[in-house]
Amino acid sequence: MTGSSAIGLHRVLEPAGVLPQAAHRLDPSPALWPDEVRVRVQRLNLDAASFRQLWTAHGGDGEVVRAAVLGIVAERGKMQNPVTGSGGMLVGVVEEVGPSSPLGLAVGDRVATLVSLTLTPLALSDGLAGWDGRSEQVPCDGHAILFGRSIAARLPDDLPASLALAVLDVCGAPALTARVVRGLRGEFVDAPSVAVLGGAGKSGSLALAAARRAGAGRLVGVVPHEGEAASLKGAGLADEVVVADARDPVGLAAAVGDPVDVTVVCVDVAGCEHGAILATRSGGTVVFFSMATSFPAAALGAEGLAADVTMLIGNGYLPGHADLALRLVREDPGVRSLFEARLAEWTGP
Amino acid sequence: MTGSSAIGLHRVLEPAGVLPQAAHRLDPSPALWPDEVRVRVQRLNLDAASFRQLWTAHGGDGEVVRAAVLGIVAERGKMQNPVTGSGGMLVGVVEEVGPSSPLGLAVGDRVATLVSLTLTPLALSDGLAGWDGRSEQVPCDGHAILFGRSIAARLPDDLPASLALAVLDVCGAPALTARVVRGLRGEFVDAPSVAVLGGAGKSGSLALAAARRAGAGRLVGVVPHEGEAASLKGAGLADEVVVADARDPVGLAAAVGDPVDVTVVCVDVAGCEHGAILATRSGGTVVFFSMATSFPAAALGAEGLAADVTMLIGNGYLPGHADLALRLVREDPGVRSLFEARLAEWTGP
Repeated sequence: MTGSSAIGLHRVLEPAGVLPQAAHRLDPSPALWPDEVRVRVQRLNLDAASFRQLWTAHGGDGEVVRAAVLGIVAERGKMQNPVTGSGGMLVGVVEEVGPSSPLGLAVGDRVATLVSLTLTPLALSDGLAGWDGRSEQVPCDGHAILFGRSIAARLPDDLPASLALAVLDVCGAPALTARVVRGLRGEFVDAPSVAVLGGAGKSGSLALAAARRAGAGRLVGVVPHEGEAASLKGAGLADEVVVADARDPVGLAAAVGDPVDVTVVCVDVAGCEHGAILATRSGGTVVFFSMATSFPAAALGAEGLAADVTMLIGNGYLPGHADLALRLVREDPGVRSLFEARLAEWTGP
Repeated sequence: MTGSSAIGLHRVLEPAGVLPQAAHRLDPSPALWPDEVRVRVQRLNLDAASFRQLWTAHGGDGEVVRAAVLGIVAERGKMQNPVTGSGGMLVGVVEEVGPSSPLGLAVGDRVATLVSLTLTPLALSDGLAGWDGRSEQVPCDGHAILFGRSIAARLPDDLPASLALAVLDVCGAPALTARVVRGLRGEFVDAPSVAVLGGAGKSGSLALAAARRAGAGRLVGVVPHEGEAASLKGAGLADEVVVADARDPVGLAAAVGDPVDVTVVCVDVAGCEHGAILATRSGGTVVFFSMATSFPAAALGAEGLAADVTMLIGNGYLPGHADLALRLVREDPGVRSLFEARLAEWTGP
């Protein structure tokens, strides 16, 4: 090793040569390489799937869950659930900035990481004494390391931290939706029509708002039941709100009506690929943000339907994605109201 | 039901309302709806995964495998392996064309279906008497139904059927690669650089040839070992041929060297997502054709690497895809030699 790597290869202890995300163990030493940043960690937000697995595996015993998280971080030098493979994000304060860090952070900045905990070197120093093991929100003391290419967002002063974190968690969706809509506008249509499956959800509502600002025409929000339909209508983010089961291709396409230029899949249930394809016009684009998307179902589904649609894997990173999402929630009362309602609803595992 | 549906909904017997691919049972009656075509079937090409499953499950007993295939087709009205979910394709001769079929086929045309057997109504009439149950190639007599949107290609007179079928099986890859290269050319670069993982394979060699014709610049073929490197060098399809394990992100990126504008993944092994992302420049595009692609690995990998890459799910259908692929194998001796070598190598299960 002759220097640090922007993607953190120099912190991988084992197995040698893999990316930090794939590593079993990272080196969380506090001393910085020149392009790194050290963050004093105040809170971990465990990934929902990870916390649910720990909670279930340990019979809902908070003490045992706490011990399990401590054990994982001590063993792996990062918080990556060995069963689900998932991590989460963290909030903290910048403690030291290496002289050649490209992240633009300053000591004292309050930040959230937008790269996963699964690749972030982490050490805990308080034994998680302030956490009861009963929630995904883990107050803690410790430090984490950001690499040259790790993405972190400064937490805004004008938004509650819980709201900002919820927004940052899904900020890839509005950015990519806006890019797709703009790309089609330039080339093919004046105002592309857009359907968002799961339009009343976090990523879905941001995608609708982003599509509107990017110049979309007809905007269709698809929701699973009348309750969400009422919320989405109230928020005013879509021209049409329709209730349909996104797993029912024929029913979904009928509900959307005229096939749209762009379909954005923001519902985290399996089996939405064919419906999304069928709801999209020939030559249009489907953007899959749901982690429940099946690659073969999408590829073979489009082929089976002889559907000439461009299908994008929703990349969680685009330059400027955090700023765009925060601006949307600040400036669009409809988006903000949907987020605040969801945050108020949250009742733990 | 008031009429036929271009995607075959009218042939679904159960469960009601699903797409033909998702159906348990289709209606293979020979009488045609106005937009349908009936094909006299001469041969089924079972999907490799499906045949392997049947072969293994039935202890390599050809008689039992034959009975199993007969049983599936009799029960389901289509050849869809209930374990693997996969099908294959068929070859036959057009027997009747409905008056409003949009497929442009004529009675007597020898065709191969480019949509999967998993959604094609099929009835067998010869008890598979001519098949020993020991190969994916199933000579047979029976009939199949093509819908308004089913895709079939006329088999060319100037190519051996086995070669044409092998080409048609992967014809989505060259078409989409060409489209992506052309799209980048227009907008961003004169001659996009392209790396193809699995460049000596069937879809890979076609993708390389298609990229060249679409105006690509530097072309890198990545292969797993020196034997394939020699074949690919001999075929002359790439400017650079490099040996690398596509599952090793760091090694792959080092082997490719300067990050490319487009990376095309044509290797059917799991774990190639991160390497493909790392080998691609910021703002570039990755096209995933491998059915072993993991959607979450791609989405989370790009996010973890803060990689602004467009990631496409390789759609097996684009208008004109069959003609393009057949033209490439006809006109490019390098592609043809690689295909013929692979066909000669094929030694059954």
